[in-house]
Amino acid sequence: MLGKVALEEAFALPRFHERTQWWASLFAVDAKKHAAEIADITDQRIKYMDKHGVGHTVLSYTAPGVQDIWDPKEAQALAVEVNDYIADAIKNHHDRFSAFATLSMHDPNEASAELRRVITKYGFKGALVNDTQRAGADGDDMIFYDGPEWDVFWSTVEELDVPFYLHPRNPTGSIHEKLWAKRSWLIGPPLSFAQGVSLHVLGMVTNGVFDRHPKLQVILGHLGEHIPFDMWRINHWFEDIKKPLGLSCKKTIREYFEQNLWITTSGHFSTSTLQFCLGEVGADRILFSIDYPFESFGDACDWYDDVKMNNSDKKKIGRDNAKKLLKLGEFKDSTA
Amino acid sequence: MLGKVALEEAFALPRFHERTQWWASLFAVDAKKHAAEIADITDQRIKYMDKHGVGHTVLSYTAPGVQDIWDPKEAQALAVEVNDYIADAIKNHHDRFSAFATLSMHDPNEASAELRRVITKYGFKGALVNDTQRAGADGDDMIFYDGPEWDVFWSTVEELDVPFYLHPRNPTGSIHEKLWAKRSWLIGPPLSFAQGVSLHVLGMVTNGVFDRHPKLQVILGHLGEHIPFDMWRINHWFEDIKKPLGLSCKKTIREYFEQNLWITTSGHFSTSTLQFCLGEVGADRILFSIDYPFESFGDACDWYDDVKMNNSDKKKIGRDNAKKLLKLGEFKDSTA
Amino acid sequence: MLGKVALEEAFALPRFHERTQWWASLFAVDAKKHAAEIADITDQRIKYMDKHGVGHTVLSYTAPGVQDIWDPKEAQALAVEVNDYIADAIKNHHDRFSAFATLSMHDPNEASAELRRVITKYGFKGALVNDTQRAGADGDDMIFYDGPEWDVFWSTVEELDVPFYLHPRNPTGSIHEKLWAKRSWLIGPPLSFAQGVSLHVLGMVTNGVFDRHPKLQVILGHLGEHIPFDMWRINHWFEDIKKPLGLSCKKTIREYFEQNLWITTSGHFSTSTLQFCLGEVGADRILFSIDYPFESFGDACDWYDDVKMNNSDKKKIGRDNAKKLLKLGEFKDSTA
Amino acid sequence: MLGKVALEEAFALPRFHERTQWWASLFAVDAKKHAAEIADITDQRIKYMDKHGVGHTVLSYTAPGVQDIWDPKEAQALAVEVNDYIADAIKNHHDRFSAFATLSMHDPNEASAELRRVITKYGFKGALVNDTQRAGADGDDMIFYDGPEWDVFWSTVEELDVPFYLHPRNPTGSIHEKLWAKRSWLIGPPLSFAQGVSLHVLGMVTNGVFDRHPKLQVILGHLGEHIPFDMWRINHWFEDIKKPLGLSCKKTIREYFEQNLWITTSGHFSTSTLQFCLGEVGADRILFSIDYPFESFGDACDWYDDVKMNNSDKKKIGRDNAKKLLKLGEFKDSTA
Repeated sequence: MLGKVALEEAFALPRFHERTQWWASLFAVDAKKHAAEIADITDQRIKYMDKHGVGHTVLSYTAPGVQDIWDPKEAQALAVEVNDYIADAIKNHHDRFSAFATLSMHDPNEASAELRRVITKYGFKGALVNDTQRAGADGDDMIFYDGPEWDVFWSTVEELDVPFYLHPRNPTGSIHEKLWAKRSWLIGPPLSFAQGVSLHVLGMVTNGVFDRHPKLQVILGHLGEHIPFDMWRINHWFEDIKKPLGLSCKKTIREYFEQNLWITTSGHFSTSTLQFCLGEVGADRILFSIDYPFESFGDACDWYDDVKMNNSDKKKIGRDNAKKLLKLGEFKDSTA
Repeated sequence: MLGKVALEEAFALPRFHERTQWWASLFAVDAKKHAAEIADITDQRIKYMDKHGVGHTVLSYTAPGVQDIWDPKEAQALAVEVNDYIADAIKNHHDRFSAFATLSMHDPNEASAELRRVITKYGFKGALVNDTQRAGADGDDMIFYDGPEWDVFWSTVEELDVPFYLHPRNPTGSIHEKLWAKRSWLIGPPLSFAQGVSLHVLGMVTNGVFDRHPKLQVILGHLGEHIPFDMWRINHWFEDIKKPLGLSCKKTIREYFEQNLWITTSGHFSTSTLQFCLGEVGADRILFSIDYPFESFGDACDWYDDVKMNNSDKKKIGRDNAKKLLKLGEFKDSTA
Repeated sequence: MLGKVALEEAFALPRFHERTQWWASLFAVDAKKHAAEIADITDQRIKYMDKHGVGHTVLSYTAPGVQDIWDPKEAQALAVEVNDYIADAIKNHHDRFSAFATLSMHDPNEASAELRRVITKYGFKGALVNDTQRAGADGDDMIFYDGPEWDVFWSTVEELDVPFYLHPRNPTGSIHEKLWAKRSWLIGPPLSFAQGVSLHVLGMVTNGVFDRHPKLQVILGHLGEHIPFDMWRINHWFEDIKKPLGLSCKKTIREYFEQNLWITTSGHFSTSTLQFCLGEVGADRILFSIDYPFESFGDACDWYDDVKMNNSDKKKIGRDNAKKLLKLGEFKDSTA
Repeated sequence: MLGKVALEEAFALPRFHERTQWWASLFAVDAKKHAAEIADITDQRIKYMDKHGVGHTVLSYTAPGVQDIWDPKEAQALAVEVNDYIADAIKNHHDRFSAFATLSMHDPNEASAELRRVITKYGFKGALVNDTQRAGADGDDMIFYDGPEWDVFWSTVEELDVPFYLHPRNPTGSIHEKLWAKRSWLIGPPLSFAQGVSLHVLGMVTNGVFDRHPKLQVILGHLGEHIPFDMWRINHWFEDIKKPLGLSCKKTIREYFEQNLWITTSGHFSTSTLQFCLGEVGADRILFSIDYPFESFGDACDWYDDVKMNNSDKKKIGRDNAKKLLKLGEFKDSTA
């Protein structure tokens, strides 16, 4: 279909080119091509978008990004640099591109202020954060955002009325050593990404973040980071066992998925899993995405364009849900 | 349906009654009832089996069990005690009960020997192990069984031609502190169980255990601990990216599921997820189970008896696959 | 769920009581109970509605009804009688009941006029017609409504902005003799109903009715009378073969289902088929219904209340789609 | 996948070339190509098979074939001619081709004898019959095979231990006039085929054919001619209502599908419908097929090769079920 919107689409800073290429060598078959694609904003990317029927791309700084920087000052400086950079890069292309804010998550107030700045000044469409923030003297601490100290941040997100994309990042520090070092092929999309994000977002659920911020909208990639598979099981244990024992969150997991959570197809181009998610999550809460350049436009778009399903949901997932959630203006084929 | 077989069914040692009841208070709404049910072997259990059409139960020692004991001698002593205990308890009930071996997993040779002993002496049907073995001076180490030092053990499992059930246990030690302590409602069935087991079994896949032991049969509970949801994504990254970069396992994830892996319905009584797994895993590799007494016979059996699907697969999943895999003799309604 | 709306719910005229009971004996296990239930409008029915969480029922005259009467004058007289009767019966219960018009379909203008009368005068919510109209001297002719002579009628339906429920009726006359007489157990819900309606509605599609009346809304019961199963196959033949050979309808079958067609769950309480229809038809076009008293409130509502799916679609199908389509005012639990 | 087996694959007699081409013009976009493809047996067909990974094709005489001939003698003569013709045509290609018998269905004994002849003499793999046999002085009668007079034939099929493929044919005579003439775009794959075959096979069910012939194996094309969609509804009415009222067939519809019925993918290359049928029918009873040359090798094989599902069922459906059912010997890639 034409006019698709994609929401988990990465870019890198040109000044880190060497590091980007080294990083790419860890997971990309053609690291050089990857490094070129992720550095490009409006050249190759627009060609791909035109070729594959993507009308609008929401850009975000590539993982692990600022969440990998345990020095708070350095992290904040990079976040600001990234935001200013991408705002400038797309300023003449608002019909085809918008951006999610990059945030240092060391301090809730600082994160709130930077989010407010870029939403207000640049019209960014929300924020994308790469799971927990590395912290501590040696980077072995992890800051989760599911405790009450983050309420000030979530209140800002709610007030600004923008979604928050909870993106994965790789395991680091002692967790990496204990769990992942000897099974490193599972790091990233095959397993660690979903484990990190599902723990984080379900922590937000069970620690009451969505109860205190009922309008908060959080987006999960990869068709929901495993959670839809276990919707019955999570619901069963929350409602039948954990709540009688003291779990205090106010709604059911299905209600949080109805009112607060979204999933995207990024990196998960499976017809059967999408069909399964139509039942568990519902087409009103699913958004097309690619995960470029970790995934290719061709793989994502050829798949989605070819999926056989009812027209209405296909348009919602491919474009219309994103238009509403992100309050997008007109873009190429936005009404095709 | 009558004559169902259940494979993830727990018992506890009577001498730990007090500890069992305390443990139960962490997750059971009625801890006293739970403690009574898990201690009983052939009384209340047979009543439930008869009422709910379960012909045969394969018993296993409740988690975390021996995997929680970081002193190797103490662990081994408990494993032997448990095996002798349950062998005696069911010796007059082989039509209704069999058992999976309990094993200390500190030492591959010791584990092999104990497995051989109980298979040979008692006719146990395989082994059930609760994820990683706690180890180290303070119990903060975790032994995974996916390295080459465990080949001797897996060779024994293959030779004895019995399946190995990879059951979850709770996170402990520093992992617990870093990830789970502040989101403790997610410990167990809602999340941590699947994260532990999926990491462990996919570690076995990527570290070549199934390549070196192509006849090894490993059973996963809870409809596969999230893995079927990501079958496409895992396959995509393994085949298209990780293998070109050096991942050396010989087969595809779908082939390991075809030749080495099984999933059970334990604790996951979801019609839509089962239907999804019919496509991703296939009815020849799915086994009914309950997870009693953490789940009730009523919840599991009323659900399964009521699932609307083709007869052939329903019988396979409910009984016939287990009969073949475990080489079960006749039991109540075993040919109903 | 509370506040469900049901749309394929039958009543009979009291003066036909004897005939109703004889008719019921052909398909009802307890013909007397059936005859009592179908004759009752606001007594037993409200009790069932309250017990099973049905907030609003749209009533229609039971099949084959007026479509079985091949004398045009007699047919028209009965239609008027039925409409006046039900309008009176529910006049004090508009919060719980509304009605679909009963129409004689011998003459498009007459049908249009009667529809206009009851929509205007009584506030009926649309029309429900039982497949083809018997006609001819001996009742062996069948009037389909898919030819251009019916455009005047469809224009009226469009103009009045109400849906048209295409309900089945039994095969009659020579068709009955040739096809159904020797396999009479297939008459009705097991087969003949779907065959009749699917031919009729796809005749409307291929003969251009929806092209000439793009706002026309037609409802099909029983999860779509087989059509969703063949969506791919119908689309393939229409688009790839029949249109190149001359089929002239302007849109694809998926577009007609997106813009003109609805399906209800009446008499088809299958979780797996509903899940399949979420993909093929989409939750925005599915409506809960019972088919009372041919089906029971208990069977329909216990099933639907227990279906595990996302909340949003469950509310749409159970209530919200019907509220929009039928422009329903407030009713019991209409916002529950 | 390699080594697929296809079972609904048509050929025509060369001497009818002109008629074939005229007939093709009714439904084929390129009638000339179609006529050439259907006349070819081992030339173009083998090229397609090699290109698309089809190891073995079971050939059958194209519909409506002998079932369209209402003169019994002429029908029988043609059946014999067709059988002798195809036996000769494939005699040097038994690794790639086998055949289903063509039968005149005017007389059960004659049909039995011809079936016995070709199974015994030529090693044919079963029979394929095109729905009802036209009969009567003007061809307006239809012979169904669901009455007791056909028991002698079904006994022969059972005794010979071969399957019977119930293939559709177009509506003819007065049925055509009444139902289909004015909606002729629905004739064939979009609707009439499934309506004819589903009536016929469910007639066999309700008239007890499978009760009197419990080993009889009947194959339905097109993923089951709508029946799997209504499995719940058929079962509900048969078991809950029709049997209490007198329907006397001994088993449930699900049991007939478990023990007597098979479905093929011919002409129905839908991933979602196949996934649905995995639950309703089960992978042990589904067979890959194309419906060449009405469908193309490319459409069928590219689709099936690309379907993402568990390996075991994919091989069963693509090849292994057919090998067992038809007792096929070795063929190209038969163990790939």
